[in-house]
Amino acid sequence: MTSPHHPLDEALQLHAASPPGASAGQYQGATHAGYWNMVGPFGGVTAATMLQAIAQHPQRLGDPLSLTVNFAGALVAGPFTVQAQPVRTNRSTQHWTLAIVQAGADGVQQVTTSATAVTALRRETWSVGDVPMPQVPAPAGQPAIPPGFGVEWLNRYEIRLITGAIPGTWDGTGEHSLTQLWVRDAPPRALDFCALAALADVFFPRVWLRRARRVPAGTVSITVYFHAGSAQLQQTGTGYLLGQAQGREFRNGFFDQTAQLWNQAGTMLATSHQIVYYKE
Amino acid sequence: MTSPHHPLDEALQLHAASPPGASAGQYQGATHAGYWNMVGPFGGVTAATMLQAIAQHPQRLGDPLSLTVNFAGALVAGPFTVQAQPVRTNRSTQHWTLAIVQAGADGVQQVTTSATAVTALRRETWSVGDVPMPQVPAPAGQPAIPPGFGVEWLNRYEIRLITGAIPGTWDGTGEHSLTQLWVRDAPPRALDFCALAALADVFFPRVWLRRARRVPAGTVSITVYFHAGSAQLQQTGTGYLLGQAQGREFRNGFFDQTAQLWNQAGTMLATSHQIVYYKE
Repeated sequence: MTSPHHPLDEALQLHAASPPGASAGQYQGATHAGYWNMVGPFGGVTAATMLQAIAQHPQRLGDPLSLTVNFAGALVAGPFTVQAQPVRTNRSTQHWTLAIVQAGADGVQQVTTSATAVTALRRETWSVGDVPMPQVPAPAGQPAIPPGFGVEWLNRYEIRLITGAIPGTWDGTGEHSLTQLWVRDAPPRALDFCALAALADVFFPRVWLRRARRVPAGTVSITVYFHAGSAQLQQTGTGYLLGQAQGREFRNGFFDQTAQLWNQAGTMLATSHQIVYYKE
Repeated sequence: MTSPHHPLDEALQLHAASPPGASAGQYQGATHAGYWNMVGPFGGVTAATMLQAIAQHPQRLGDPLSLTVNFAGALVAGPFTVQAQPVRTNRSTQHWTLAIVQAGADGVQQVTTSATAVTALRRETWSVGDVPMPQVPAPAGQPAIPPGFGVEWLNRYEIRLITGAIPGTWDGTGEHSLTQLWVRDAPPRALDFCALAALADVFFPRVWLRRARRVPAGTVSITVYFHAGSAQLQQTGTGYLLGQAQGREFRNGFFDQTAQLWNQAGTMLATSHQIVYYKE
């Protein structure tokens, strides 16, 4: 079901720019208008770009286990370079340090995004999930919501909201920050680790819902833990994911936001946490 | 109340090894026998060491907001070098890339630990906490538990357990993974960001409690979000913190573990998340 012309595949196109076999991989990419947010690319696609560089690195061991992406500075429309270095490779885990650099207005290369990741070979073990998927109506019964605010990247996702929409009126009456929704790429695309990383960041800033007030807000750092292996991703295919997000502590300019993603069969695919800047 | 002879201060002693004003700070430290775990230092102290390098860096802006530490390889007893580089400094946030390197058996310097951190200047804003401190008995009424397993670092903490002790018998009967406890440094030490980072990792692996089976387990990556500023830390002083930890998804060799830390006044000081390796 994955097409080479899917917008996500276009957005994630990277070209190796370092000699084959070099330890510090360098990859050329470019921002994609289809995933544009308010003042830069959708952060989820930036996170996915980090995983894409790892996926293409000739020394990669295993699949993504954890990813932390720090949004250090604005990525402007145009080309950028991803640096991906496996700083330590063990028997079953590999540790990565990554950065996206881009020339600033003065032509000097600057770090816009830093990251670390761990990839791992997984073995079958005793397993249990202690966060069951919430009981919610099936996606077919839920309306596909309009984006709600005018950013292009939201058009790349089919979102069927269950609870916790963007407030219709910004009147300061918010009481909670819980959103539950069904989501998948639009058009549908078979799930892979890159797409999953992006989906982990699909939720609007919890402070907007909590306050029913649209203050400036932006992710500072996001961490994604991948609980699924390739087999679970293949089983998920182009199906919907149930996503749930909630803020927890809002204090003096920053709040934390947690998210969980399950497939329709009820398998937890990923969890994520982020710390988000907000104003006022 | 902080003594220069407190074991945590001893463990966190770093000496600048790079020329003053150099962007990439290099600091010499050494492991401390008082914080030894089973096969290396207590991971919480390694996390705190990263913050200590930032605290000493002449270009530091603001206080810790987030910290991700990846445990890439074993840190052996003896000296190590911390590298701390501010890769991007904005008006109110600063992004750090860090590593601990140590000579291996072959004399070659290797990365044992990688990290990223964000420091920030905080301003007073609208704030709300949506995770109230659980109602639990006061610390004075709870017994100080013996360490439960023979690792030295646990003697550096005064732990008054409320629920979720290390299983007394490893009979496979576990049903949940929730631990709640009061904790502070032993001897008492006024709370700072380094101590708080270490405290965020004070919980034993949730898989032991969940399974009532002591399988090999070790943290792969931990992220700590700091919700407190210096004022809240000063208010906390040498008081107890209420710590709560729980596992969520245990799957094919890795599980995630979340933790929250409040002071006795009920202020959320930090939250943390980690992904942990386990065997079998």
